[in-house]
Amino acid sequence: MKILEGMMVSDLKYFNSTEGSVYHGLRNGDGGFDRFGEVYFSTVNCDSIKAWKLHKEMILNLIVPIGKVRFHFLDDRSDSKTFNHHFGIELSQTPYQRLTVPPGIWFGFKGIDSGINMICNVASIPHDPEEMVRKKMDQIYFDWNE
Amino acid sequence: MKILEGMMVSDLKYFNSTEGSVYHGLRNGDGGFDRFGEVYFSTVNCDSIKAWKLHKEMILNLIVPIGKVRFHFLDDRSDSKTFNHHFGIELSQTPYQRLTVPPGIWFGFKGIDSGINMICNVASIPHDPEEMVRKKMDQIYFDWNE
Repeated sequence: MKILEGMMVSDLKYFNSTEGSVYHGLRNGDGGFDRFGEVYFSTVNCDSIKAWKLHKEMILNLIVPIGKVRFHFLDDRSDSKTFNHHFGIELSQTPYQRLTVPPGIWFGFKGIDSGINMICNVASIPHDPEEMVRKKMDQIYFDWNE
Repeated sequence: MKILEGMMVSDLKYFNSTEGSVYHGLRNGDGGFDRFGEVYFSTVNCDSIKAWKLHKEMILNLIVPIGKVRFHFLDDRSDSKTFNHHFGIELSQTPYQRLTVPPGIWFGFKGIDSGINMICNVASIPHDPEEMVRKKMDQIYFDWNE
C-alpha cells in the first residue's frame, strides 16, 4: 500500500531514563512543519473507531507517544496522483514516527492498545469547524479488522 | 504561595465521548503563546523526581493530559518582583490547566499518579543545550514530600 501524495512519515527519537522518558514531537524547521496553529490531544479507547473527517485547509502532524493507533486514509483530491487510493498505518512508539497529512484526505483511526491510546496533533491552523467535513462510518467502506 | 512574575495558569477545555476524549493544548494567539519552537513529551514515573533545570531563553507551556505531576519553581531573575520566591503547582486533568513559564526560573517535577504521568511542553524555541542550565537535586533545597 503506497503512501498518499504529500503524506510523509518521519522517524522520531526518544530517550529513556530511570525517572521517565522524553519523546520528541515536532520542531520548527522539521520536514512536515508548515506553520503552527494548534496542539491538541485525542485519546481513543481500545477497539473504538473515530471516522471519518477531512480537513480542507489543515496540515496534520500526528504523533502517538502513548499506546498504539491504527489510522486509515482515503485521498479525495482529484488532482492528486493517488486520487481515490487508500493508505493505512499504525503509529506507536515502536517504531516511533510522526505522520504528516496534507488537506483533502479522509481519515479515521482505531485504538489498538488495551491501555491509553493518545494522539497528539500539531496542526498548521487552529481548530475551525468551517474547514472540517465529516462522513459517517459507513459512508466510506473499510474493514477495520482486516 | 504567590505565582512567580510572568508565569501564567490558563484553564483548558476537554471533551469526552464514548470513543475517547479530546484535550485542548495551545493555540496560536492564546495567552502565553509567544512563538513556536518545538513540541515534546516527558513522562515521569510515580514518585520519581526530575530536578533542576533552568532555561535562559525558552518559554515553556506545560500541559499534563495524562496523570498528575507536581511542579516546583524558584525564581532566579534578580530583576524580578518575585526574585528568590518559590512556587508550586500540580498539573493534571482536574483541573485541566496550562502553565506558562518564562526563562530564568529553576524548575523540577515529580510524578504523582501510579499510572502514566505525561507532560507536553510547547516550547518557544527548539531544544538547545547551550541555553539550559542544570543543578543537582540537593543544590536547591525543597522537600518534595511536604
